[in-house]
Amino acid sequence: MGNSDYVHPSNVECSHRVAIPPPQPFLKTLKYSLKETFFPDDPLRQFKNQPPSRKFKLGLQYFLPFLEWVPRYTLDFLKSDLIAGITIASLAIPQGISYAKLANLPPILGLYSSFVPPLVYSLMGSSRDLAVGTVAVASLLTAAMLGDEVNVKENPKLYLHLAFTAAFFAGVFQACLGVFRLGFIVDFLSHATIVGFMAGAATVVCLQQLKGILGLDHFTHGTDLVSVMRSVFSQTHQWRWESGVLGCCFLFFLISTRYFSKIRPKFFWISAIAPLTSVILGSLLVYLTHAEKHGVQVIGELKKGLNPPSFGDLVFVSPYLTLAVKTGIITGVIAMAEGIAVGRSFAMFKNYNIDGNKELIAFGMMNIVGSCTSCYLTTGPFSRSAVNYNAGCKTAVSNIVMAITVMFTLLFLTPLFHYTPLVVLSAIIISAMLRLIDYEAAIHLWKVDKFDFLVCMSAYIGVVFGSVQMGLVIAIAISLLRVLLFIARPKTLVLGNIPNSKIFRNVEQYPNANNVPGILILKIDAPIYFANSSYLRERIARWIDEEEDRIKSSGENSLQYVILDMSAIGNIDTSGISMLEEVKKIIDRRGFKLVLANPGGEVIKKLNKSKFIAILGQEWIYLTVGEAVGACNYMLQTSKPNPMKGEAETWNAV
Amino acid sequence: MGNSDYVHPSNVECSHRVAIPPPQPFLKTLKYSLKETFFPDDPLRQFKNQPPSRKFKLGLQYFLPFLEWVPRYTLDFLKSDLIAGITIASLAIPQGISYAKLANLPPILGLYSSFVPPLVYSLMGSSRDLAVGTVAVASLLTAAMLGDEVNVKENPKLYLHLAFTAAFFAGVFQACLGVFRLGFIVDFLSHATIVGFMAGAATVVCLQQLKGILGLDHFTHGTDLVSVMRSVFSQTHQWRWESGVLGCCFLFFLISTRYFSKIRPKFFWISAIAPLTSVILGSLLVYLTHAEKHGVQVIGELKKGLNPPSFGDLVFVSPYLTLAVKTGIITGVIAMAEGIAVGRSFAMFKNYNIDGNKELIAFGMMNIVGSCTSCYLTTGPFSRSAVNYNAGCKTAVSNIVMAITVMFTLLFLTPLFHYTPLVVLSAIIISAMLRLIDYEAAIHLWKVDKFDFLVCMSAYIGVVFGSVQMGLVIAIAISLLRVLLFIARPKTLVLGNIPNSKIFRNVEQYPNANNVPGILILKIDAPIYFANSSYLRERIARWIDEEEDRIKSSGENSLQYVILDMSAIGNIDTSGISMLEEVKKIIDRRGFKLVLANPGGEVIKKLNKSKFIAILGQEWIYLTVGEAVGACNYMLQTSKPNPMKGEAETWNAV
Repeated sequence: MGNSDYVHPSNVECSHRVAIPPPQPFLKTLKYSLKETFFPDDPLRQFKNQPPSRKFKLGLQYFLPFLEWVPRYTLDFLKSDLIAGITIASLAIPQGISYAKLANLPPILGLYSSFVPPLVYSLMGSSRDLAVGTVAVASLLTAAMLGDEVNVKENPKLYLHLAFTAAFFAGVFQACLGVFRLGFIVDFLSHATIVGFMAGAATVVCLQQLKGILGLDHFTHGTDLVSVMRSVFSQTHQWRWESGVLGCCFLFFLISTRYFSKIRPKFFWISAIAPLTSVILGSLLVYLTHAEKHGVQVIGELKKGLNPPSFGDLVFVSPYLTLAVKTGIITGVIAMAEGIAVGRSFAMFKNYNIDGNKELIAFGMMNIVGSCTSCYLTTGPFSRSAVNYNAGCKTAVSNIVMAITVMFTLLFLTPLFHYTPLVVLSAIIISAMLRLIDYEAAIHLWKVDKFDFLVCMSAYIGVVFGSVQMGLVIAIAISLLRVLLFIARPKTLVLGNIPNSKIFRNVEQYPNANNVPGILILKIDAPIYFANSSYLRERIARWIDEEEDRIKSSGENSLQYVILDMSAIGNIDTSGISMLEEVKKIIDRRGFKLVLANPGGEVIKKLNKSKFIAILGQEWIYLTVGEAVGACNYMLQTSKPNPMKGEAETWNAV
Repeated sequence: MGNSDYVHPSNVECSHRVAIPPPQPFLKTLKYSLKETFFPDDPLRQFKNQPPSRKFKLGLQYFLPFLEWVPRYTLDFLKSDLIAGITIASLAIPQGISYAKLANLPPILGLYSSFVPPLVYSLMGSSRDLAVGTVAVASLLTAAMLGDEVNVKENPKLYLHLAFTAAFFAGVFQACLGVFRLGFIVDFLSHATIVGFMAGAATVVCLQQLKGILGLDHFTHGTDLVSVMRSVFSQTHQWRWESGVLGCCFLFFLISTRYFSKIRPKFFWISAIAPLTSVILGSLLVYLTHAEKHGVQVIGELKKGLNPPSFGDLVFVSPYLTLAVKTGIITGVIAMAEGIAVGRSFAMFKNYNIDGNKELIAFGMMNIVGSCTSCYLTTGPFSRSAVNYNAGCKTAVSNIVMAITVMFTLLFLTPLFHYTPLVVLSAIIISAMLRLIDYEAAIHLWKVDKFDFLVCMSAYIGVVFGSVQMGLVIAIAISLLRVLLFIARPKTLVLGNIPNSKIFRNVEQYPNANNVPGILILKIDAPIYFANSSYLRERIARWIDEEEDRIKSSGENSLQYVILDMSAIGNIDTSGISMLEEVKKIIDRRGFKLVLANPGGEVIKKLNKSKFIAILGQEWIYLTVGEAVGACNYMLQTSKPNPMKGEAETWNAV
């Protein structure tokens, strides 16, 4: 590297040079940025320096992860997976039926959806703990969005077909995101958003269950608190106490088994089989007491047999196509956010890696295949996956076991569900939903980060009082606003000298840091972009004004140098460079001198290209704040620092 | 401050303490953030410590800035303002008529709009150089947006009333933004966006002039290149050569006077009066040759008299209300962006300050008053203000002079414009627009910042091939995407030791910086937010992988410490804290040790509240990278650095 790449040190003590990084060809930079944006995890790493045959095998394993673990599969693994699979099936059957009711779809769809998609996932998915199935929030959202335009009672067939189509588009969308490595958009759903959104959705889902618990025939289509409460209290005369009592009993049973399993983790299976037990008990009770004739609604006839093909039912040419696409994309995003978050959490526990984009392709394929075999939207629900994990699953074989169990149910056992009371399903849903209301997490958010708490609460309130989509949009908007605000209103910090050192730190954080007489040291805490350049110009001018006021009142030496610590400025754009030029003009005009400390590679490159360094003078750029202060102090002590000073003061007085 | 606020230094050499800033009451922090967000320029600064009478006077001056300069107004100022005012009037009259034609409004509106709004602005505006008037882009946009829904030929009255209403809402919107101190949204239009957008709009406006130049009767309502070209070339038989020749002559005249004034700045007035000269010459020519009967279209009858009141014409209850509001807001934003940018630039030249929010109130009031007196949207156009500045204006009196001149024209001279050929107006518009196409700025953007160039070009292409609104939306979206990408994909840099110092810098920028054996030093260049926490987790893991690979191949000491330099991390949210916890787990599991260097005040406060510091151990946080490296080196040399190491390695092998 030639000397010309360096800025020459000033005439003072030993100081180091600020390097301008060697110029990179545009295409190389572009390639690097694209790689960092879309392939941050470097998925092709393991392919490097491998012979072609090995590369082929790795490639096949990349797309079908089951090839990886099948050769190493043992009888011990099978035993564990068998237990886990049967356990999750006992949860999947009642939950599947419940959530299908929540989506206003025929209950049998819940069983169909626990048969085909898990099989697809076990071939393509890379999580060992994810248990595939339908989820409450996406079910509710499907009902709300499709129900807005299609009345399920008047046109059940169209509604059903639209649900398949929505699942199809959700799958296509997920797979596309995965293929184009855009899985990172899931990251824009922050933890706080998800906490608030999930709690809100759980509240809404619980509210919907009042229909089942109270045995109401007519119910609002709205999901917000106000509509539901109005609907419930406008028909108090229709409340069925039989249904209510039954519901409360089962709810109590489910919650107490959960609580028991929580304090005795060894008995996790008790809470896992509690839903199925409730279904069996409830059905027996209804069958023996003929309660279906006394206001307790039951599921009724369930068709025997495996999933019928439904490819022909997908609606591609219809005025409802946009509705299906919209529903598919929104439910698809919600579903994949849950699925990926769940997969990642358990992978973190067991210390293996999950490639989010690969998972998206698996989710996408399972929904596309599912939509052609009478399934609606599936993903990896938290409750089922947690049971799977606790039951000791080892590989995706537990999903296969679950699918086979559901298959047997579909083939032989569906008539047994005829007398299952709806109120039991409502109790199962409520008990599953209650644990999604994570108020402890909300308290933690309040303690640590008020803004995150605001995001969380707005998601919750938006969902509960508006709609599920509205809550999500509000929360994402506020989250993004925060990011933009960080950029639009960056912090500018005044630095002072830590006693007995050459270290300079923020005087607010380190109250013992001292001002250096005659020198104002500012640090900007964010990249300088168009969105903050006007603000920074005014803020820096104000810092200088305030510093001058302070000096006047304290009678210290007058201000001579303004040092900008640029170490936290990650990037700068052309508006930012203009801002620096204007700041330099302002500072010059007042008779001070602008000094830069530690500009980063990207920043100094652009400052150099835009000739700002030539305007400023290379000798006014230092590697550290300490060296800049040293040089300024040297000049303050030896001579008049700035020959322009006299002239500048007249300017200032104009 | 108690010792408990400090993290205790580790057991090595002399190192400094990282302070946790004292906790602030929530309301105080909130107040501070709100102040920084909405009052960054501290407008109440001058009110501090003043007696009430002075405060009242300052307050009055704040809202009516003319009170500030009127007492100091001298005869010399008046002389300068008189010359400047007459000069800009000579530009304002032909431009006003031209732009009103561009907005499909009666030409007289252009004169009305140069009479009342400048008077209002001279009372309320704080710029000394801004010359008020209509602008081409907002005029075109008004025509495009209103023309979409109302056919001006079929329903000219409704169209006219909607234009007034749009101006009214633009004014209300601008004034509200000013009152609520939201002027900073203008900053989201970056320099690059404005360059591209202005060039695109200028191209579109020039294309529209083909109608006038070629003397066409019928013309497309579309503004995009394709529609215009199709419209022009589908009626080649209708082209009028008389009109074309006249247009080219005047265009040549205008451009050459501009060029002359540019190389001889003393003769700026030549280019300033060229438009009026063209109008006079053109009108005389038509009058003498009766060219209006040979295909040269003329303005025709202009009503004599001052602005009629139009408050009763505003449309508030109509199906078109939303259209008017939408048009008002969009044109209002464009207009205020131009006005504020122009005001700020000239204030920068003359070294005085402009409060953007105060300006917005002035713009808003002048548009509200204007809309009630038969004016459409006005702002401070660049061309007219530049002429005002060059003509040596001193205060807003030049606007009053212009208004009075226009008033005389309205009262006595309008009949003279009867024979003014439209083609001259087209030539005036084209010559004004051509200088908005700032290709040199675009080249500069390409050289300095490729992303800004992309923004600029997409604005240009969006405007020229789509529509004005589309170009604007695309450019803003890409600009915001850049900000989000900066956050979503922050840079992580590897630091090395600058020889003969305790300074650690990025090894890419400083190729002579050396790795420290056994220690990996990473610096994250952005706040850690939900949008980047997954990415950073994976990226840090990858850096560690790559470092281990490098160490394996080079046979160095094995990795023991990972130091995270947090000095550029301005803020962190709860997702970010979870990410750090996960990173710590990953690093522990591999048998290394995580060390933090220089976390900022906001960051360490949150890390402390969320107990991360307790998990990490306070002794693993250092004030500088140098001290962290020193401590790690000391431990590397004296003993086994991490008692967990043996155990951890078995973990790793699982």
